[in-house]
Amino acid sequence: MNIEVCYSPQSYHLFHKPDAVVVVIDVFRATSAIVTAFYNGVSKMIPVATIEEAKEYQKNGFLAAAERDGEVVEGFELGNSPFGYMNNKIKGKTIAISTTNGTQAIEVSKHASKIIIGSFLNLDVVCDYLLAQEKDVVLLCAGWKNKFNLEDTLFAGAVIEKLSHHNSVTYNCDSAIASKHLFNLAKPDLFSFLSASSHRQRLAKLDLERDIQYCLTLNQCSVIPFLEGKYLVKM
Amino acid sequence: MNIEVCYSPQSYHLFHKPDAVVVVIDVFRATSAIVTAFYNGVSKMIPVATIEEAKEYQKNGFLAAAERDGEVVEGFELGNSPFGYMNNKIKGKTIAISTTNGTQAIEVSKHASKIIIGSFLNLDVVCDYLLAQEKDVVLLCAGWKNKFNLEDTLFAGAVIEKLSHHNSVTYNCDSAIASKHLFNLAKPDLFSFLSASSHRQRLAKLDLERDIQYCLTLNQCSVIPFLEGKYLVKM
Repeated sequence: MNIEVCYSPQSYHLFHKPDAVVVVIDVFRATSAIVTAFYNGVSKMIPVATIEEAKEYQKNGFLAAAERDGEVVEGFELGNSPFGYMNNKIKGKTIAISTTNGTQAIEVSKHASKIIIGSFLNLDVVCDYLLAQEKDVVLLCAGWKNKFNLEDTLFAGAVIEKLSHHNSVTYNCDSAIASKHLFNLAKPDLFSFLSASSHRQRLAKLDLERDIQYCLTLNQCSVIPFLEGKYLVKM
Repeated sequence: MNIEVCYSPQSYHLFHKPDAVVVVIDVFRATSAIVTAFYNGVSKMIPVATIEEAKEYQKNGFLAAAERDGEVVEGFELGNSPFGYMNNKIKGKTIAISTTNGTQAIEVSKHASKIIIGSFLNLDVVCDYLLAQEKDVVLLCAGWKNKFNLEDTLFAGAVIEKLSHHNSVTYNCDSAIASKHLFNLAKPDLFSFLSASSHRQRLAKLDLERDIQYCLTLNQCSVIPFLEGKYLVKM
């Protein structure tokens, strides 16, 4: 069982293996929001790449979420703040969602045999699932507009740190090694470590410190959303 | 003066700025070999993307170097071992060179206003040059077949570590922040830190430990090769 880390959706084709499990990671905040939504009872989510597609679903009576550059897109009631998904209105509903980076990462990996959604909020259940599969793993960081980002890398490092204690697990690509080093540096205080990071500063400007704190909290939501056809559903 | 780090030639278009200085980095071993060649008196080098182009130059009487997957390509006298460039035969000569990653990185950045060649061997002179220019900088890691690699990242981190002590210098992209963290972890012993890295292991299999040691030695060659038209020449 070999683990690789892909730092950008743009590079996914270099990592694609037909049989591997892909973990899509967008810590700030798409995958944290998705995990939170399922934990709070949403039935299905439909990740869509464009705002137009999200609007189309909205017209057809679905709840729809759209975020660009950290803000809720005009005309939508939900963005990618996890706190938007902590209420009874979403229970049992199907929500279409389009975000700056996270939904693009799902899009590029859609030919993988299994795509699951990872975030610090469901770290342990994701690791347990991966171990049980005994398949190769690609940790796919959504990054920021196809550039490397730190928070997704730290989550990838957290997964490797946890799984590397098992004999069946190998990781030998340099991005996996670097991610583990960075997570071990950061783990005493993820929040402080990320204080200089670009997206953390972007979100701080938008007054989203509460979101950041929440997204960096481990194991608050023991659910694993995965892609089934065009829907995300709960495992 | 802002510094960004690009982890793969494939991503260069996301970092391109017309006025920035690009530092091409391929520590194991293309840029280390190029720096060594100029330090040892080569007159010009012609970086070419394909082996066919290198052969064409060879037919026309040029010295030619070609490396793929760590080995000298059949029919060529030089590859990218720096030790191949430490003799009198190359003095005053023009050498065409094609390598797995390094020459591809030069190719993608060719529209930059200035492209210089960086390696641990010329770290300090590169930093001094960048400071004097007062222009934005893109540290372009050649990586390994468009994937992230550790050794080029450590060199990028070394440059940022040195320059970040100057007030005029900023670095706020996450890849720059991560590179600096990784360099600071590695700097007590670059060789040991890289012992697990993928390319280090690839080269160890080829019995190139001596090359690795040399490529990780700081400031052995105080020259800065730069691109002038299709030629690399010494500054």
